[in-house]
Amino acid sequence: MKSATEYITFKTRKHREYINITDSVAKVVAGSGIAEGMVLVSAMHITAGVFVNDAESGLLADIDEWLEGLAPYRDDYRHHRTGETNGDAHLKNLLVHHQVILPITKGRLDLGPWQQVYYAEFDGQRPKRLVIKAMGE
Amino acid sequence: MKSATEYITFKTRKHREYINITDSVAKVVAGSGIAEGMVLVSAMHITAGVFVNDAESGLLADIDEWLEGLAPYRDDYRHHRTGETNGDAHLKNLLVHHQVILPITKGRLDLGPWQQVYYAEFDGQRPKRLVIKAMGE
Amino acid sequence: MKSATEYITFKTRKHREYINITDSVAKVVAGSGIAEGMVLVSAMHITAGVFVNDAESGLLADIDEWLEGLAPYRDDYRHHRTGETNGDAHLKNLLVHHQVILPITKGRLDLGPWQQVYYAEFDGQRPKRLVIKAMGE
Repeated sequence: MKSATEYITFKTRKHREYINITDSVAKVVAGSGIAEGMVLVSAMHITAGVFVNDAESGLLADIDEWLEGLAPYRDDYRHHRTGETNGDAHLKNLLVHHQVILPITKGRLDLGPWQQVYYAEFDGQRPKRLVIKAMGE
Repeated sequence: MKSATEYITFKTRKHREYINITDSVAKVVAGSGIAEGMVLVSAMHITAGVFVNDAESGLLADIDEWLEGLAPYRDDYRHHRTGETNGDAHLKNLLVHHQVILPITKGRLDLGPWQQVYYAEFDGQRPKRLVIKAMGE
Repeated sequence: MKSATEYITFKTRKHREYINITDSVAKVVAGSGIAEGMVLVSAMHITAGVFVNDAESGLLADIDEWLEGLAPYRDDYRHHRTGETNGDAHLKNLLVHHQVILPITKGRLDLGPWQQVYYAEFDGQRPKRLVIKAMGE
């Protein structure tokens, strides 16, 4: 069995931001020498997510608006009694999830034609980590 | 380490459809000769999902109605400026997710008594691919 | 390749309950002798979920309220024609998902500083199973 692990730190300029990390994931896969396996891509924070979708700017704006609709900023989350103001970011994280696991086939990231991997920052402007871990043979 | 990979292409008759693929997944697991491991079941499109739930037709209709409520068809998604009309299908995909990973134990798909694996088509009537990838030993 | 599998049965006192299972997962990882790999944590029922978030009681109450808002109890789910009354629990399960997969690095569960693993019971007061399965080397 082979494995490869890499950490990426993001510090987004905006509070919420969607970053295409497909190339970073493909690079870890290529460097791992794994022909058949899987690669886990996982946010290491509870106010950021990872998802697979289309690299289309209109759609990303739709997704952002939709997430704000379903998991809106609110002053009165109980979580804010701790001094935090990011209750909505925790809920957005639950909605899109913090991780994906992708197939590696014949040495390559085995994605469909339009599938791109996104890091979704919901409470940015500070360092946040992501882990990419491939395993296989 | 052993692995097995299979692709299935769906072309649903309806625009949205929920297809029980548990037997297909179990077949890949059985054919792989893997005793202990995991199997990834992942849509290769960004307008289809995979989930685990109950094989009960009333519930599947409830799920469909609920998804349409939370991620409705709308004319005015920004994504539609590209000529597409399937913005809602992208959002439904984010909601149910495009993949599951299931345990393989003692050579069998290790599901609970009511767990069934579903392919959820949100923009059908054209060929769409799914990948099933098992790995273990 | 090494693997380790453990089942945990929950019987919650309340109908809905959120249980921090991080220590149980870490224990399976430690006992497996795996240095590099992944661990799958998956509910074996379709009315319970697993998620990663913050161990903060206010936030957990926010999450519970939010889930009830997006996937509310209703008398008139079609699923209830079968005699069941837990349609909302199925939808809550879809929303938070029934599983997570976590990295194992240098023999340890490789979580971020605030990441805790939760079992989310949406239809409790009866025995429900969870599987923890680690694999790697």
